[in-house]
Amino acid sequence: MTQQIGSWSLQFAEAPFILSSASVVGKKEGEGPLGELFDMVCDSDKFGEDSWEQSESSMQKEAAALAMGKASLEPKDIRYVYAGDLLGQTIATSFGLMEYEIPLFGLYGACSTCGEALSLAAMCVAAGYADHALALTSSHFASAEKQFRFPVEYANQRPLSATWTVTGSGAFVISSTKGKAKITGITTGVITDYGVRDSMNMGAAMAPAAARLIVQHLKDFNRLPDDYDAIITGDLGYVGQEILWKLTENEGYDISRIHRDCGIEIFDKDRQGTQSGGSGCGCSATTLSACFLPKVESGEMKRILFVPTGAMLSQVSFNEGQNVPGMAHGVVIESA
Amino acid sequence: MTQQIGSWSLQFAEAPFILSSASVVGKKEGEGPLGELFDMVCDSDKFGEDSWEQSESSMQKEAAALAMGKASLEPKDIRYVYAGDLLGQTIATSFGLMEYEIPLFGLYGACSTCGEALSLAAMCVAAGYADHALALTSSHFASAEKQFRFPVEYANQRPLSATWTVTGSGAFVISSTKGKAKITGITTGVITDYGVRDSMNMGAAMAPAAARLIVQHLKDFNRLPDDYDAIITGDLGYVGQEILWKLTENEGYDISRIHRDCGIEIFDKDRQGTQSGGSGCGCSATTLSACFLPKVESGEMKRILFVPTGAMLSQVSFNEGQNVPGMAHGVVIESA
Repeated sequence: MTQQIGSWSLQFAEAPFILSSASVVGKKEGEGPLGELFDMVCDSDKFGEDSWEQSESSMQKEAAALAMGKASLEPKDIRYVYAGDLLGQTIATSFGLMEYEIPLFGLYGACSTCGEALSLAAMCVAAGYADHALALTSSHFASAEKQFRFPVEYANQRPLSATWTVTGSGAFVISSTKGKAKITGITTGVITDYGVRDSMNMGAAMAPAAARLIVQHLKDFNRLPDDYDAIITGDLGYVGQEILWKLTENEGYDISRIHRDCGIEIFDKDRQGTQSGGSGCGCSATTLSACFLPKVESGEMKRILFVPTGAMLSQVSFNEGQNVPGMAHGVVIESA
Repeated sequence: MTQQIGSWSLQFAEAPFILSSASVVGKKEGEGPLGELFDMVCDSDKFGEDSWEQSESSMQKEAAALAMGKASLEPKDIRYVYAGDLLGQTIATSFGLMEYEIPLFGLYGACSTCGEALSLAAMCVAAGYADHALALTSSHFASAEKQFRFPVEYANQRPLSATWTVTGSGAFVISSTKGKAKITGITTGVITDYGVRDSMNMGAAMAPAAARLIVQHLKDFNRLPDDYDAIITGDLGYVGQEILWKLTENEGYDISRIHRDCGIEIFDKDRQGTQSGGSGCGCSATTLSACFLPKVESGEMKRILFVPTGAMLSQVSFNEGQNVPGMAHGVVIESA
């Protein structure tokens, strides 16, 4: 039987599999270091649509179709979809997934949504509630800038601590059917506020939540960093990574040797002008699907801890002077 | 073992209990027909805070505290909280629940969120992932008007089809410990678009999703409307109710005798000027907690189907000319 372990974690007795996954990204992501690994790179970030929001919906639709296709499944084979995005009222998801007519659990975990969706889909399949469930998320540079900061057309200057929202969508089929990777456990985070108020420094806002989650995860599972081939955060970037290493070291865990960050992997900051790194729900989702999951599937990595993090703010909360607390979800993925 | 039944439903082998619940509402709700039933009525809709958003957070905090208190539980006893609200990036939830430090799954299902939260919390407890989980949601008239329509200070005219967003928060402790009511099954909806574009007529936008869900639920469970003491929608209001009855009748089910709508129950439209009725995540959550759940707990009602519905729109999607599709989640609650 699946066990509640420690304060924040579950260890699955019968681990659900990641049967397939897919990544769809925009032009800039296609030009980055991982460019050749993505399943689909669109020449135009509009994805054939009229608005940025619809473009993001279109990416979700494509990512879902590709992930289902790789597993030879049709929408009717998927019992539940767990999905969300960064936009107010998660409209990219609502409009992107409508035509599939799959029962939907809509999620919001900011950029940690990929971890939340994988966690809930794994819980669902492990309990026998579904044979196949889809975990899916997205972000789009232009829709996110419009949502959280300024319209892209304003050509605002960006500080060095700023991250660049990834235009991308990642989808994962979680299944009771055997695949090459499995989700063996999850650690679910709490909202953590260290008093950061700078919406142009998301790495600093989210690093404390990531540090708490990683430390609690290691305690809950009674493991050390070396028990993992990699601990992979979502989008802390260079600024957040430094803070994360320091905070975990303060707790007695040196993760610097095995830490990777999807936001650092996805762009070449010198060549692409992406400052601290990539960010957004799509950053961790597409990088996991295209870069890290294949390494687990091939056995090059035996066990990874995937920790996407989110910054809990809206334009309203920010303008009203609230802090920017962070959130994190941890997912243990192992070779099957 | 819990069974997947029909296309959209689960029947729990060991049904989780609703151990306790609580409702916190604003002044106008306290003056309505259900006024005396709510656990807490605040004289001021500010709940002692400086902004409408923080007021909503404060309501969530109070509702959670009351629900935990009634079950003699502390935050550390709650393994997971499933929660969401109507605001962009669900900030009422992020800021409302932070201090409890309970692992959080953030949700967005518009006004159907109460059903989504109850469904996921029930799935979680039924699988043995938690002994106690909290399902919680809220809405606030002023924060919602600002989010979706116009600031209240503009004193806009409202058409007769408009609903009045309830200022309220409802919280439910879902538990493996025996209570007086239990969740025996769920039906999870799909996003349904019948082409409605009027953001001042949410009832019409959501009624098709409710009708599809109710019809599919009855088919999945092989039941008739008479197998329920009540089928309770969240916030269709008078306009949506008429459409719902017609759509379900077209499918061969007459639900008019047993249909109730939280949006119709919570306000006196003649006396309170609430047009088509109440709406918002808090409408269904507080009305279930204060009005219907006690009837199930006392045995006056043996079995109800609770169907909160949501309208999937944002200010951006609406201004970009998109339709307003609907969503619904069904939860079967029975006397224990």
